[in-house]
Amino acid sequence: MKRIFEVDPWKIVTHSLDKDNKRLQESITSIGNEYMGMRGMFEEKYSGDTHPGIYLGGIWYPDKTRVGWWKNGYPEYFGKVINAVDFVSVDIQLDGRSIDLAQDKFSDFTLELDMKCGLLSRSFIIHRNDTSVKVKSERFVSVACKELYANRLRFENLGEKPVEICVTSLLNANVFNEDANYDDQFWNVLDKRSMQQALTMTAQTIENDFGTPRFTVAMKAIHQTSLKYQNNLETAKSVSACWQGKLFANEKAEFEKKVIVTTSRDYSDRFVMEEAAEKLSNKQAVQSFEQLLAAHVLVWAKRWEKSDIVIDGNDESQQGIRFNLFQLFSTYYGNDSRLNIGPKGFTGEKYGGATYWDTEAFAVPFYLGAASSKVTKNLLQYRHNQLDGAYHNAKQQGLAGALFPMVTFNGIECHNEWEITFEEIHRNGSVAYAIYNYTRYTGDQEYVHHNGFDVLVGIARFWADRVHYSTRKDQYMIHGVTGPNEYENNVNNNWYTNMLAKWCLQYTEKIAQEVSEEKISDLRVTDAERQRWAEISEKMYLPYDKKLGVFVQHDTFLDKDLTPAKELPQDQLPLNQHWSWDRILRSPYIKQADVLQGIYYFIEQFSEAQKRRNFDFYEPLTVHESSLSAATHSILAADLHKEEKAFEMYSRTARLDLDNYNNDTEDGLHVTSMTGSWLAIVQGFAGMRVSDDKLHLAPFVPQEWKGYSFRLNFRNRLLSVVVGAKRTELTLLAGAPLEVILNGEPVIVKMEEN
Amino acid sequence: MKRIFEVDPWKIVTHSLDKDNKRLQESITSIGNEYMGMRGMFEEKYSGDTHPGIYLGGIWYPDKTRVGWWKNGYPEYFGKVINAVDFVSVDIQLDGRSIDLAQDKFSDFTLELDMKCGLLSRSFIIHRNDTSVKVKSERFVSVACKELYANRLRFENLGEKPVEICVTSLLNANVFNEDANYDDQFWNVLDKRSMQQALTMTAQTIENDFGTPRFTVAMKAIHQTSLKYQNNLETAKSVSACWQGKLFANEKAEFEKKVIVTTSRDYSDRFVMEEAAEKLSNKQAVQSFEQLLAAHVLVWAKRWEKSDIVIDGNDESQQGIRFNLFQLFSTYYGNDSRLNIGPKGFTGEKYGGATYWDTEAFAVPFYLGAASSKVTKNLLQYRHNQLDGAYHNAKQQGLAGALFPMVTFNGIECHNEWEITFEEIHRNGSVAYAIYNYTRYTGDQEYVHHNGFDVLVGIARFWADRVHYSTRKDQYMIHGVTGPNEYENNVNNNWYTNMLAKWCLQYTEKIAQEVSEEKISDLRVTDAERQRWAEISEKMYLPYDKKLGVFVQHDTFLDKDLTPAKELPQDQLPLNQHWSWDRILRSPYIKQADVLQGIYYFIEQFSEAQKRRNFDFYEPLTVHESSLSAATHSILAADLHKEEKAFEMYSRTARLDLDNYNNDTEDGLHVTSMTGSWLAIVQGFAGMRVSDDKLHLAPFVPQEWKGYSFRLNFRNRLLSVVVGAKRTELTLLAGAPLEVILNGEPVIVKMEEN
Repeated sequence: MKRIFEVDPWKIVTHSLDKDNKRLQESITSIGNEYMGMRGMFEEKYSGDTHPGIYLGGIWYPDKTRVGWWKNGYPEYFGKVINAVDFVSVDIQLDGRSIDLAQDKFSDFTLELDMKCGLLSRSFIIHRNDTSVKVKSERFVSVACKELYANRLRFENLGEKPVEICVTSLLNANVFNEDANYDDQFWNVLDKRSMQQALTMTAQTIENDFGTPRFTVAMKAIHQTSLKYQNNLETAKSVSACWQGKLFANEKAEFEKKVIVTTSRDYSDRFVMEEAAEKLSNKQAVQSFEQLLAAHVLVWAKRWEKSDIVIDGNDESQQGIRFNLFQLFSTYYGNDSRLNIGPKGFTGEKYGGATYWDTEAFAVPFYLGAASSKVTKNLLQYRHNQLDGAYHNAKQQGLAGALFPMVTFNGIECHNEWEITFEEIHRNGSVAYAIYNYTRYTGDQEYVHHNGFDVLVGIARFWADRVHYSTRKDQYMIHGVTGPNEYENNVNNNWYTNMLAKWCLQYTEKIAQEVSEEKISDLRVTDAERQRWAEISEKMYLPYDKKLGVFVQHDTFLDKDLTPAKELPQDQLPLNQHWSWDRILRSPYIKQADVLQGIYYFIEQFSEAQKRRNFDFYEPLTVHESSLSAATHSILAADLHKEEKAFEMYSRTARLDLDNYNNDTEDGLHVTSMTGSWLAIVQGFAGMRVSDDKLHLAPFVPQEWKGYSFRLNFRNRLLSVVVGAKRTELTLLAGAPLEVILNGEPVIVKMEEN
Repeated sequence: MKRIFEVDPWKIVTHSLDKDNKRLQESITSIGNEYMGMRGMFEEKYSGDTHPGIYLGGIWYPDKTRVGWWKNGYPEYFGKVINAVDFVSVDIQLDGRSIDLAQDKFSDFTLELDMKCGLLSRSFIIHRNDTSVKVKSERFVSVACKELYANRLRFENLGEKPVEICVTSLLNANVFNEDANYDDQFWNVLDKRSMQQALTMTAQTIENDFGTPRFTVAMKAIHQTSLKYQNNLETAKSVSACWQGKLFANEKAEFEKKVIVTTSRDYSDRFVMEEAAEKLSNKQAVQSFEQLLAAHVLVWAKRWEKSDIVIDGNDESQQGIRFNLFQLFSTYYGNDSRLNIGPKGFTGEKYGGATYWDTEAFAVPFYLGAASSKVTKNLLQYRHNQLDGAYHNAKQQGLAGALFPMVTFNGIECHNEWEITFEEIHRNGSVAYAIYNYTRYTGDQEYVHHNGFDVLVGIARFWADRVHYSTRKDQYMIHGVTGPNEYENNVNNNWYTNMLAKWCLQYTEKIAQEVSEEKISDLRVTDAERQRWAEISEKMYLPYDKKLGVFVQHDTFLDKDLTPAKELPQDQLPLNQHWSWDRILRSPYIKQADVLQGIYYFIEQFSEAQKRRNFDFYEPLTVHESSLSAATHSILAADLHKEEKAFEMYSRTARLDLDNYNNDTEDGLHVTSMTGSWLAIVQGFAGMRVSDDKLHLAPFVPQEWKGYSFRLNFRNRLLSVVVGAKRTELTLLAGAPLEVILNGEPVIVKMEEN
C-alpha cells in the first residue's frame, strides 16, 4: 500500500511532489471525457521519470502478434491504443530556462484533482536565485464539448526583479508507446500549419498489414494570452508558437490554450480538419476558459446528482467511491456505442485500451444503476455492432456461431495465449447475461427482441457446437476451458462455464418464443435447432459434490490438496509474484470468483444453504489476486450476513488505486474494477436486487460507517436511498411512483409534493 | 510424399536438379561427423532458393526468450545452434562469370551421397555459348580426423575454345541464421589472415546477457591446385584467395580445399588457433584429398561392419534404413560426452540443435544395439554433466530435486511454452529409464552405482516433491502435466507420467540398496526419504478402467467423444495443420504413443491381454503426427503378431525424410526419429528383448520382404542375425559364446572356428 494523496471527500490533493512515485501520481490524476483522456503528466518539461499518455477513444493500431510458439487459430494482430499526437505539452521558460520540477527549486506545491468539477489544477512557486514566480495550471477535457481540451496557465512574479517569461505551445506527433515492439511510431503527419496564434495538425495512423482502418486525427490549438506573440516553429513532426513578456514585481500574466480534436471516426477523412476542427474551434474561440469550464462543471454536476454516493463517518471510503465514480464516468458515459471500457481506460497503455468481459460482468451492473439506461444500451449495441467479428472468431476455432472476443477493438479477437483466447469462452455467456440483466433491470423488451436476439442466437449456436456428448455419462460436456479463475487452465466442465452455457441456451430458446416470426426466419432458427438447444441444456453436465453439497469448480478440483489460503506463508503472497505458473495451476487457489461468480449472477435463484455452503467452501481458497474478485465476494458475504467479511472485501476494491493496493497503479488505474465498490455498496450493503420486475433493497450499515446514501436509476425513476443505522429512507427524485420491496415489505415511493 | 532421389541400396542419387525443392535436397544430402556437419548446399554460388547451414557441435548462442505473455518460471534465454563461419563457399568463375546452376545452362547433372563412404559428390557440364566445361565436386567431413573438412573440385574443358577458370576460396563470418530474432549475426571476427595459399580466421560468438560461455572458433584453409595463385582479398568479416588458369580443349584442372576447424570447446581460447588449427593443418597438408578420403572411408567401413542392416527383396526399405543409420552416425557416435543429438542434427536450424528427451527414449535403445556401449554411456554421462542445471530447473518451479530440461544445451531449460516447459515432466522419467536400459543391456553395474545414482536420486527427489496427496482418494497424484501425447496439455494423472514416476522411485530405492554406504551418505539419502519414496510409489494413483480393461491416459480421457481417427475426413488431416489448437486439445486424438509408450518401455512386464486391449483401444485414436510415433506402434504391433500393422508403421518411419512424408524435411532431417526404423526392425520384426540378463529374439519376415539381416552389439559381442522366411541364423562375429533365447528356446552362439 502506498498513499500519496490526502484524504478528502471531493478532492484528490497533495501538497508535495513525490518524484519517486511520479507515474503513480500521473495515473491517479488522469482525466477523461469518454472521447479522449490523458494521464496526469505535467504540461511543462519534466526531466524526471514520467509516463506521458494521451489517448483518443477508438483510435488504435493492430500490432503484429508476437509469440514464442505459434498455435493454430491465433489472431494475426494485437490491437493497442496508441499515444495520440501530443497536444498538451507547453514549454514555460523563465529568463530563458525551462521550468522543470525535476530540477528546479520550488515551494508551495499543490496538485489537485477536483472530482466535482472534473478539473485538474496545480500550483507552485519557482525559486531561482533572487526571483520567485508563482505558476498555476488548470486543465480539463470537456464533458460539454467532447472535442475540447482546455488549459489555463497563470503566472505571478512574487519577487522584486522583473522576469522574462516565454510560453511555447506545441502540437507534436513525435510520440512513442512504451509497449511498442520496436520503438515504432504510429503517426504520419499529413498537414501542419502555424498561423500566429493558431496551430493545426492533421495526422494519420501508419499503414498496417491487416486491412483494419487507419485513423485521421485533426487538431487545432487556439490561444489567448496577455503575453506577446513572438514566432512559430515547425519541425518534421511538430508545430509550435511562442509568446513572451516581461513580468515586473507583483505583475501577473495569463495564457490559455484550447485544443479541438476531431477524428475520422466522426468525419470523413477529407473533412476532419477543414470542416470539423475549424468550425468547432471557431465556436469555442469566442468563449473564455472560464466560460468553457462553467459549461463543463454543469454537466458534471448533473452526473453527480444522478449518481453520487455519500458515506457518513468515513472520509476514506467517501473519497474512494467518488474517485471510482469519477474515473468510470471519465472513461465511459454511453455517448458512443462504438466505444467501450478498457480495463485501464485512458490512464495507461496496459491491456491496450481494448474491450474485455469486464464490461458485461462488472460495468453493466454498475451503469444500470448509476446512469440512465441508454448508457448500458450502448454497451449492448457495441457487441451487436461487432457480431460479424464474433462469428469470425468462432470460425477461427472451427466452430459455428459467434464467440465474442477476450480482447478486441473491432470484434476480432486479438489476444494470443491459447488458454485464454481459445478457452476462456465463458466470456460469451456474460455477453448474453448482460442482455438479460439490462432487460430485467430496465423492463425494456425492445432490445432483446431485436438486436439482442441476433446476439443471443449467435452465442447459442456457439455453445451448441462447442459442447460434446459423452457417451459414457450420457451428458453434454464442455472440455478444455479456462474459467474466471485464471489460476487454472484447460480444465474440463468448469461449473460456471457449463452453467452459463446451459442458461444461454435456455434463455435464447425462451426469447425465441417471444420474438416475431420474421425475426426467427431472418436468422434461420429452425425447430430442429431449438430442439437441440433444449436437449443440450437439459443434459448439460454440472459437476456437483453430494458429500460437500457444493458445485464443483471443474471435474477434478476436489482431488487437489485443499489447504486453505490462510495457511500459506505470507512471504509467498501474492502467488503470482512468487510461484511458478505450473505450481499456481495445480494449486487449489482461486484468483477471482468462479463458482461464486455464477452464484452472484443468479443470486436470487439459489437457496441460502446453497450460497452459504459454496461461499464457505470456495472463499477460503480464494487469493483475490484479480482486482475483479473482491466486489463479488463482498456482495455474497453481505447476502449471507457476513457483514465483516463484506466490509473487508469492499475495502479491497474502494481504494485499490488511491492506496496502490496491488502495487501496479503506476501503469494506470483499474478502471473496470472500480465498478466493484459501487456494486459492493448498492448490491452488497444495501442488498439491491431486481426480481419479478421489482426493485428490492435490504440494507445494513457496516460497523465502520454511520450511514450512507446513494442515488439509483431504475426504470425511468431516480431514487434517493438514505441508509441509517436504524432505518432506510427512500425518496423518489424523478419519475412515476414505484413499488420497492424494502426488507421484504412492499413500499410505494412517490415524489414529494411541495 | 515427395521423392526427389532415386532408389539405390547404398546411394542417395539424382540426375536432375529440382530447383523447386532445393531445400529438401539440401536437407537429405547433409553430411556430418558428430563434431560438425552441414546441409547439402552447393559450394559455388547459387542464386535460387537455398538454405545454407554449417553447424559445429556444441557451439550455440543464448537468444533472449520472446513470448507474448510472460509466465513465472520461464527461462531467460532460448539456446540456438548458430551458423558457423562459412568455410565451404567457393566461387568458380568461367571466363569471368560465376557458375550459378540457378541461372546457367547445364547437362549431365548428378548429385550423389555415397553412404558407404560418407562422400557427397556432384558433377555437371556447364554450357555457355560455344564452351562446355565439366565440373565435379566432392566433399566430406572426416570421421578419421574430426576437425577436417575436405573439398575437391575438378574441371575439364569439353569444348574447343580455351576457357579462363578462376576459383576463389573463402572463410566468411558474414553469415545469418534464418531463425534469428532480428537478422542478428552471432560472430565477432578476432583475427583473419591470408597468406597466399592459406587462409585463417579466428572468430568469437558475440556477447550475451546470460553469462553462458562464449565460443572461439579458429579455422585454417589450405589449398592445393594446378591453378595459379593470383591474390588475396580481405573484407571486414571475410578473407579469400583466388587462383586462375586457362584450360585448353580437353585440358583438366584440380582444386583441393582442406579446412581445419578447432574450437575453444577443446582448446583454451588462446591456443585454439596458434596451436591447434596450425598444428593440425600442417599435419593434414602433407596428405592429398585422396589419402584423407581413404582414411575417412575406412572408419565408415568399420561402422557399417558393426551396424549394417541388409534387407532382401526391397530396395526402398534398404535405402531407407541405411540412410537413417548414416545420418544418425553422422550426428552422433559417442566420441564426446559433452554433445548430444539434436532432433535435426546438423541438418537444419529447427529445434535449435538442442537436446530433447528423444535421446533417452529413442536414441539410447538404438545406440545400445547398433554401436559399442561407450556411445550410450557418453549419452548418460551428458546428463550427469548437466545435473546442476537439472537441480536449477526444479528450483525454478519451486520444487526439490532435479528436473532434466525439455530443451537444452547446458542443462538449463530453455523452452518457453508453459504446457511443455513446466508440465511435460515425464522427460525426467526417460532419463532414469535410459540408465536402467543401459544397465540391463550392457550388464555394466558400474555406471548406475556411481554417476547414475546421482542422477536417479535427483530425479526421485523431484517426483517426491511434485506429487501431491489427495485426501479424498488416499492416493498420490500428479496434476498439471503434459504426457508424450502433446495433443493434450495440463492434464491430471497422465498414466504414463504417474507410472514412470512410481517406477523411478522404486528403481532409485532398489539401487540405493546396492550402492556403497559412502554414496548414500554423500548424497544425504536418509531412511526417512527412502521411506517416503516407498510410500509414494505404493500409493501412486494409476488410472485404470475396469470395464474397458485399459490404463486411462488421464483422469477424464474417457469422457471424450471417442470417435476413431479413421472416421475423420481426410481433408482435415494432419490435424495440426487443419484444426485450431483448442479443438485438437479436447479431441481424443493422440499425437504419439502415450499409454503405449509406457507399455513399450516395460513390454516384458505386461501380459499379452493387457498389451492387446490397450493397443486396440489407443492405436485407433492415434494420428501419428509426431515422427516419433510410428516406431513404438510398429514394435507393439509386431509383439502382438499384427504383422501388417507393424510393417505399415515401419514404413512411416523408414523413409520419412527420403519421401518427405511430413512435408517438412526442407527444414532438416528428423534425425532422432530415424532410430525408429532400426528399432522397428530389431525390436519389432526380430522381436529383440533383453530380460533376465539374456538376449531374446523372435523374428518374423514381413510379407513385403524376402528376408533381412542385421548386426547387433550386445555385452561385448557382435552378433550377426540373418532372418529368412524359414529360419533365423545367428552368428557370433566377435566376443565370447553367448546364450540367446531364440523363439523361446535357448541357443548357444559361438564364433565359427576355421
